[in-house]
Parts: sequence; C-alpha cells; structure tokens
Amino acid sequence: MKKIINNPNEVVQDMVQGLVAAYPSKLKVIPETLVIARKDAPVEDKVGLVSGGGSGHEPAHAGYIGKGMLDCAVAGEVFTSPTPDQVFEGIKAADGGKGVFLVIKNYTGDVLNFEMAAELAEAEGIQVEKVIVNDDVAVEDSSFTTGRRGIAGTVLVHKIAGAMAESGASLQEVKRVADKVVANVRSMGMALTSGTVPAAGKPSFQLDDNEMEIGIGIHGEPGIERKQIASADDIATELVERIFADIDIPKRQEVAVMINGLGATPEMELFIVNKKVQSLLKDKGIEVFQTFVGEYMTSLEMAGCSVTLLKLDDELKSLLQAPSEAPAFRN
Amino acid sequence: MKKIINNPNEVVQDMVQGLVAAYPSKLKVIPETLVIARKDAPVEDKVGLVSGGGSGHEPAHAGYIGKGMLDCAVAGEVFTSPTPDQVFEGIKAADGGKGVFLVIKNYTGDVLNFEMAAELAEAEGIQVEKVIVNDDVAVEDSSFTTGRRGIAGTVLVHKIAGAMAESGASLQEVKRVADKVVANVRSMGMALTSGTVPAAGKPSFQLDDNEMEIGIGIHGEPGIERKQIASADDIATELVERIFADIDIPKRQEVAVMINGLGATPEMELFIVNKKVQSLLKDKGIEVFQTFVGEYMTSLEMAGCSVTLLKLDDELKSLLQAPSEAPAFRN
Repeated sequence: MKKIINNPNEVVQDMVQGLVAAYPSKLKVIPETLVIARKDAPVEDKVGLVSGGGSGHEPAHAGYIGKGMLDCAVAGEVFTSPTPDQVFEGIKAADGGKGVFLVIKNYTGDVLNFEMAAELAEAEGIQVEKVIVNDDVAVEDSSFTTGRRGIAGTVLVHKIAGAMAESGASLQEVKRVADKVVANVRSMGMALTSGTVPAAGKPSFQLDDNEMEIGIGIHGEPGIERKQIASADDIATELVERIFADIDIPKRQEVAVMINGLGATPEMELFIVNKKVQSLLKDKGIEVFQTFVGEYMTSLEMAGCSVTLLKLDDELKSLLQAPSEAPAFRN
Repeated sequence: MKKIINNPNEVVQDMVQGLVAAYPSKLKVIPETLVIARKDAPVEDKVGLVSGGGSGHEPAHAGYIGKGMLDCAVAGEVFTSPTPDQVFEGIKAADGGKGVFLVIKNYTGDVLNFEMAAELAEAEGIQVEKVIVNDDVAVEDSSFTTGRRGIAGTVLVHKIAGAMAESGASLQEVKRVADKVVANVRSMGMALTSGTVPAAGKPSFQLDDNEMEIGIGIHGEPGIERKQIASADDIATELVERIFADIDIPKRQEVAVMINGLGATPEMELFIVNKKVQSLLKDKGIEVFQTFVGEYMTSLEMAGCSVTLLKLDDELKSLLQAPSEAPAFRN
C-alpha cells in the first residue's frame, strides 16, 4: 500500500483536522466528534442540512459545507457508516429551530443509522425530514444496499436542497425539492482500478491490465460486467445509454451533466469523456443547461468515472445556480 | 496502460474540445489551434494574460481562464511545449490593446517558444512582457530545465497577476506584481508513483512498492532522493523544511499555503498533509492567511503532492482575494 498517511487507523481523524485547518474561517469540528459544521452553525431560522457517510469519498461530504449547501457533514470511518450518536451530534449542531433535513445515500448502514439519529433528535423536539438518494442505475441491490445505490447525484441534492434552505424555505419545501432532484437524477459509473482502504492495506478488488468494470459502486461493489477496456467514446456511450434506458429524457429537455472522477483519473480523461457525452446529448436533442467536470464523489484512489444527468425545470435551474460558498462547490 | 482515452495521439485535441464543451459560456477555442480563450477575449483596454505549456497538468492551465485570471492558455502536446506559432495565436487572441503578459514555467522549451512568440507579436506591434516562474526548490537544473523548475506556485502567479490585470493596471504594473510573487513563492514535491504519457504507453519511471521520491518534477524528472516511504507527518516536515532552507520566512510573516495533489492522490491524503503543514507553520510563528488544498498542477495520474508557500504583503493579499471566475479557481 502506497499512501501519504500516518496511522492507517487514524486517517479520518487526521483528515478532519486537516480539513478544518484549511478553512478555519468557514468550518469547525464539533468537539470530540467527527462532525464538521459551518462555522456559524446553527444558523437561526434556517432549515439545517446534514449529510455524511463513510469517509473515502472526498470532497464528499464535508467539502460541501457552506452557505448555500450543507450545515454539517458526519464522517464515518473509511467506507463505514457513521454511528447514530455521531449523526445525532450533527443534527443538533445544524438545528437552528426550523428543523433539520438529512441527505442520505442509499446504503443499508447509512439509512439505518441516520434514521436512528432522527428518532433521537425527534425525541428531543427537533423536527427531522430526509431524502434517500439512489441515483445509480447500475444495479438493484448490492453488497452494501437494498435497492439502488446513492452516488455522485447526491452532490446535486446537496446543492439544490441547500439553496432552498438558504432561501428561508420550510422543512417541507426543502423536502419537496430534494425529492424532485432524486426523482430526476440518474448516474452510472465505471472503473479501471480499485482503491485501497488504509486499514485493509490492499486493493478492494483486482482488474486485469486490459479490464474495466461497468457499473461499479463507490466502495468497489460489483457492477454489471467486467470486460476489455474500451475507448473513451465507447465508455461514454455505454454510461449514457444505460441512463437513458432507465429514465425518460425527452427531446428539448434541459439537463445538468456531471462528469465525476473517482479519485485517480486525470482531469484530461474526464474532459475526453465529456466531449463524447455532450455530443451524444446533442444528437438526442437534449439541452445542456450546466456541466460539472471534476472530482465530486470519489472512491479513494479508484481510477474511473461516472456520468450523472439531472432533468431540470425552472425551479431546479434557479436553485442550481444560486450562490454556494462551500469549498468544493463554488457558484 | 489503463486510460479513458480514444487515440493516444489525439488526447490533447479531445481534451480541449471536451473542456470548451463543459464551459461554453465562459471559454472558446481559437479555430484550428490548441489555444483556449476567455469567451469575451480580447478584453478591450485590459492587459491580456497568457500562459500554457505541455498538457497533462490539468487543470493547469486552461482551467484558470476566466475573469480575474488568464485570458488564454496554449496547450502543447502532453509534457511538450506548445510551438511558437501556437503561443503567438494565444497572444493575438488575448491582445486588447494594452499589451500582453506571459506567465511561463521555467522549462527550456517553454521559455524558448514563448520568447519566440513574443518576438513575433512585437513585430506586429503588440507589447509583450513576461515572468518566468521557478518556484521548485528541489533541484538546480534538470532534464527539462536550466535553473529551478516552475510548478504549482505558477497558479498563484496566474491568480495575482490576473487580478492586477483585471483591475485595469498597466503591463508594467502586472509585471511588477508577477515578479513579486515569483520572488516570494517556493514549492517542493514528492511522488509515490509515476504517471503514464498516453503516446508512450508505459509509466515514465518506476518506484518500488516501498519507495517514494522527494523533489520530483511534474514530468517525472528526477528529484533529490529515492527512499523508503515515510509517514505523512515526516513527508510534510521534509517538504516544509526544504522550503525554509531556501527562503527566509520570518516569524509573524503572513503566507498563503497550497497543498497540491499530483493527480492520483486522494483528497483525504492532502488534508492529512495539510494538518501537519499547518502545525509546523504554527510552531514557527508563521501566520497562514489562506490555504488551498486540491489538484492545481498535476502530472497525469502521478500519486504524490507538493507544498507551496507564498510570502504575502498587503498588496498580494488583496489581489489573492479578488474575485476569479475561472472554472478551477473560484474566489
């Protein structure tokens, strides 16, 4: 294992401290937790937005904390759900009196622990609502999940629900737009190599030198098919077509596009994929409103990418373009 | 070689098209060139800022095009200087009548070709000034360079010279602040693995499973020492101490810090390095004004990082914090 770390069992603690040290005027860590919060949290009379999950997906989720996006992110151990008491700390830190909204990626552990935390919070009189993000069209059910997995589309939920909360909307209104994003967002990924969980010390899986895996999850969960590595154009086509097979996107529909790197993919390659994705969408008569290319939801040092499409209406367009001061998503 | 590409000899062309397709309202490509420009270039009565160099360092340099930073970036083939005629096209595209300023990383090919382009431009009556960035403290002279190499500190030159140009400053004023950044910025890098140039098809160099190289360049040029991989804290300490050995940074000096990933390093590891760098600076009585953590100047899919320190005065602080609309550097 080649990593720039200290104790493999303390990577999350080290990372959280290094993250807050990078943005001391914007972020704070809630003492004795792995909860990172907006420096000014809780923001009074604003719905608090909380997300989180296993670490190893950076900049998700703490990079999305800031005015216009999340109030708190709860960092679990690498690829491991945060415990209910940690999530509960996040909810309390985000609660400005108008309720707290949870954005949960659909993994069994995350759903269970965030729901238990919500119950603890409700018992203390904090109103809690949630959305479960399941944008990955690759597989129904997998080693970590019942139903579809939540991947890069989650970042667009953070953005849009965050903008809605920042506008002063009620908890129910925040839930309404978050549900709308989840209903309209789909993703599909692929990988060339595995990442290595520090405490495990060896790659999560092996692909041969000429192999790729289509539909892989962000923890290295199995996808649809291992096959010989194809050209960027063929990869882009397969990812886009699998999304179109899952959701109806009519001609002239406006969409947001995210080309997401999984950790070790050079930005050059993401732009090469984007070239083909844009050309495929143009051929289908789809109108691209905004494109995001970069590392938004990673899987340690996995090489690979995912494509996300979000169908937009006027409300989602306006919320997508609202200001964000989060370190990893500036608008 | 595992890469998401089409023809290995056309990666730069594909990337440039995919980049402009991602930000069509902000960027344009100058027809029949690999020159990317601000959509509204040339901006009248503003000094034009041009940079560029070999590709493979994305988001450098085209990601730094935008209001408040560069007007044009000239993309050479991977790790290969752009030709003088391509740079000349960039200068013409950036020329709004107030002169053009070139930010050149100190590699022999880049310096030669940018200087030849400047001569071509001056022959056509365009006033040109330049700065040569040489922030890498690792080595004097190397396979690509006479004198010290230009690496991640270049991005801070783009930012500060760009803000100065945007303020309406003269060509001489832009040169003055760019020179000031170069005099005060130092960087030092290390790598765990090599990247692979697509047209070469195999890694540029090999490090053993337990080896790292200190002082490596962004094209895989040799550094100071290959040795057994150390902890993140020890790596951070070595990088910081080598910078302090090169430049005097007195107590209470304000600095900007950049922790730069070289392509395949998870953001988690960059934050772990940042934790130690901030603690070392605190111990030395240095005051950190602003920190940047991310992939700013990469070397394809090289795993590794660099640390950059920039000594700031009031003028540099103000220019550093000025707005930037570049896709890869939002302020």
